Amino acid sequence: MAHITLPEGLPGITGPLAFRPETAKPLRALAELLLRGPNTLSSADREIIATYTSSQNDCHFCQTSHGAAAAHHLGNPSELDANFVLIAQIKRDFESAPISSKLKALLNIAGHVQQGGKRVTTEDIARARREGATDTEIHDTVLIAAAFCMYNRYVDGLATWAPEEQEAYIPMGARMAHEGYVAGPAPNSAARPEAVTV
Amino acid sequence: MAHITLPEGLPGITGPLAFRPETAKPLRALAELLLRGPNTLSSADREIIATYTSSQNDCHFCQTSHGAAAAHHLGNPSELDANFVLIAQIKRDFESAPISSKLKALLNIAGHVQQGGKRVTTEDIARARREGATDTEIHDTVLIAAAFCMYNRYVDGLATWAPEEQEAYIPMGARMAHEGYVAGPAPNSAARPEAVTV
Repeated sequence: MAHITLPEGLPGITGPLAFRPETAKPLRALAELLLRGPNTLSSADREIIATYTSSQNDCHFCQTSHGAAAAHHLGNPSELDANFVLIAQIKRDFESAPISSKLKALLNIAGHVQQGGKRVTTEDIARARREGATDTEIHDTVLIAAAFCMYNRYVDGLATWAPEEQEAYIPMGARMAHEGYVAGPAPNSAARPEAVTV
Repeated sequence: MAHITLPEGLPGITGPLAFRPETAKPLRALAELLLRGPNTLSSADREIIATYTSSQNDCHFCQTSHGAAAAHHLGNPSELDANFVLIAQIKRDFESAPISSKLKALLNIAGHVQQGGKRVTTEDIARARREGATDTEIHDTVLIAAAFCMYNRYVDGLATWAPEEQEAYIPMGARMAHEGYVAGPAPNSAARPEAVTV
């Protein structure tokens, strides 16, 4: 049971977002910009950074929902199963996963941000630059990891409810990937607007 | 030296905020709402929660600037020295500081959020309720602490520059308390708009 009385039936962060619409607005805008805004990093890569950070923070809702969003960004529906296997491998040991050296260097930075800002070293940054990362990409990686240290604590610090099984997150991930974090549902969608996650 | 090339002379978070105005907008809006928006918790209490969280994250810029903002909220300029002594005492050991039992209960929650969302216990929440905290006050305490786990990592994860000595933060704290986190400087102010902190 959540620590405060939240609207019923809304999983994870969507409960507190509906509880306090004023703070939901900048929280949603930040997620939209960081994960879907114009960027030289793909949305898939940015969702993977968010997913990895959330897994390091042991936040079930965020790592599973953003992992599903990443899986949707990575390919068409027929590839979903393979994409979920890749996401699980990245969370377990990204250094040995079949992803670019640049994304590995950015995940290394994100992992250190999760431990604490001062854990990011000049060598972490130098590695990312050697792999071609720009200042803006390094900035965004640090801010995505920092932001998920917030979202994860918001979700778990209020003891919100979330579905256990990965299947429940597949349609949620599709909405996150294709409709985003700010807008309500598409005109023909039956989804409740307050169920849009970040 | 900062890990990326930031505009010169801007302390702490103001450098990355000026570097990336798109993400600065929701980051500033969130700080304004959480620390200065309409609330049954005073701005002084909310700045104290931000300061304490930042001290637990060992973020020099955030704990000193928000400590100065709290000191300005707590009383008139002639009381600043005494207020700084109180802020230092709260950071060192809030349970023995001369503050309300309710604020102590909220700082206890914030301290647990800083360690990780799952560290917040039902007893932490029950204690806050016994001291009169409402659901919205508990929600805002969790979100302030979570948000400063983001701001602190953003500031230190990019290795931003910040003045060492507390004196440099006195005018900054006054601006944060009285002008806020979103607006540019007041019409007669000589402050640079990009130097507004969060």
